[in-house]
Amino acid sequence: MKIIVVGGTGTIGKAVVAELAKRHTVVVAGFSHGDVKVDIKDNASIDAMYKTVGKVDAVVSTVGKVHFGGFTEMTTELYSIGLQDKLMGQVNLVLRGLPHLNEGGSFTLTSGILSEDPIRFGSSASMVNGAIDSFVKASAIEMPRLLRINVISPTVLTESMDAYGDYFHGFESAPAARVALAYSKSVEGAQTGQIYKVW
Amino acid sequence: MKIIVVGGTGTIGKAVVAELAKRHTVVVAGFSHGDVKVDIKDNASIDAMYKTVGKVDAVVSTVGKVHFGGFTEMTTELYSIGLQDKLMGQVNLVLRGLPHLNEGGSFTLTSGILSEDPIRFGSSASMVNGAIDSFVKASAIEMPRLLRINVISPTVLTESMDAYGDYFHGFESAPAARVALAYSKSVEGAQTGQIYKVW
Repeated sequence: MKIIVVGGTGTIGKAVVAELAKRHTVVVAGFSHGDVKVDIKDNASIDAMYKTVGKVDAVVSTVGKVHFGGFTEMTTELYSIGLQDKLMGQVNLVLRGLPHLNEGGSFTLTSGILSEDPIRFGSSASMVNGAIDSFVKASAIEMPRLLRINVISPTVLTESMDAYGDYFHGFESAPAARVALAYSKSVEGAQTGQIYKVW
Repeated sequence: MKIIVVGGTGTIGKAVVAELAKRHTVVVAGFSHGDVKVDIKDNASIDAMYKTVGKVDAVVSTVGKVHFGGFTEMTTELYSIGLQDKLMGQVNLVLRGLPHLNEGGSFTLTSGILSEDPIRFGSSASMVNGAIDSFVKASAIEMPRLLRINVISPTVLTESMDAYGDYFHGFESAPAARVALAYSKSVEGAQTGQIYKVW
């Protein structure tokens, strides 16, 4: 298969690329690094990425920014960071990618544990992750040409505990290599509309 | 208690007002009708509503618009209708309402069954409902002054089956009066961070 991994230069993305590249041709897309550059907030940039890469069998997204901040200090603008980046950026990777996926191909997005297991400062992440999970369930039933879509909902990464551990006391972390297996299951399996929780 | 019901002129809202007005002082807020007018897409309008009404013990929201359309015809703009109206409109009712709620008061928002049980043409509703459910779980743990927040996730209303029944074949509908009980439980009970499913 030919697979684009958008965010393939990040912590999860690198592990996903390592797993999938054992058996497939992987194109790494990133904001500032990678085989092809893409800004998921910009539909023209997404279209340019797909045009450069050509037809693919799978699109994997491991990207998405949200703002972390205390709930009572949140605003329309701070929530819109996550809505435009992690949520609509990934949704637009799907919508704009539809014509570029071969029949039977798949989309695999990324949400996260905070949809169900919230932390202080994480209300935007929770909102966005919940939106992605439900979007995936819904869009799966309307996909044309046998296309599939799933989402990986990881817990905090073991590799991120030095940076974010203070927000996630008591959470069991998962190494990126373990999280990457769920992406492999989504891309190489046959299921659709699934939320693969790696918690 | 003094309670604002935003959307109190709609199908669910009228039933909620009927239930709560038996025991409480209810102020009905609506876009074009009601005791006070409000456009939930406009923070200045939300602020004006709270200023007019004064301190309250509960804010109930039964409002929110989303675009229904086939998934492959959806766009950034069509998804943003629901993100700005049903999602951020309700979130801003909470954020802007924080200073206007008496200690121990409550917010009760509205999502819907499509977060988990999607239909054709409903990917925006699913996305928005999932976002609201997770937002409520997350914001509940950061509420100041013992404030509470819950969300009601109703199935399709029996009263709406004439208009929308063709989208919901096989769904069990619920009469608005039954759905209204969940709002009473949220406002008059003591729980927080809950998703009350009326399915």
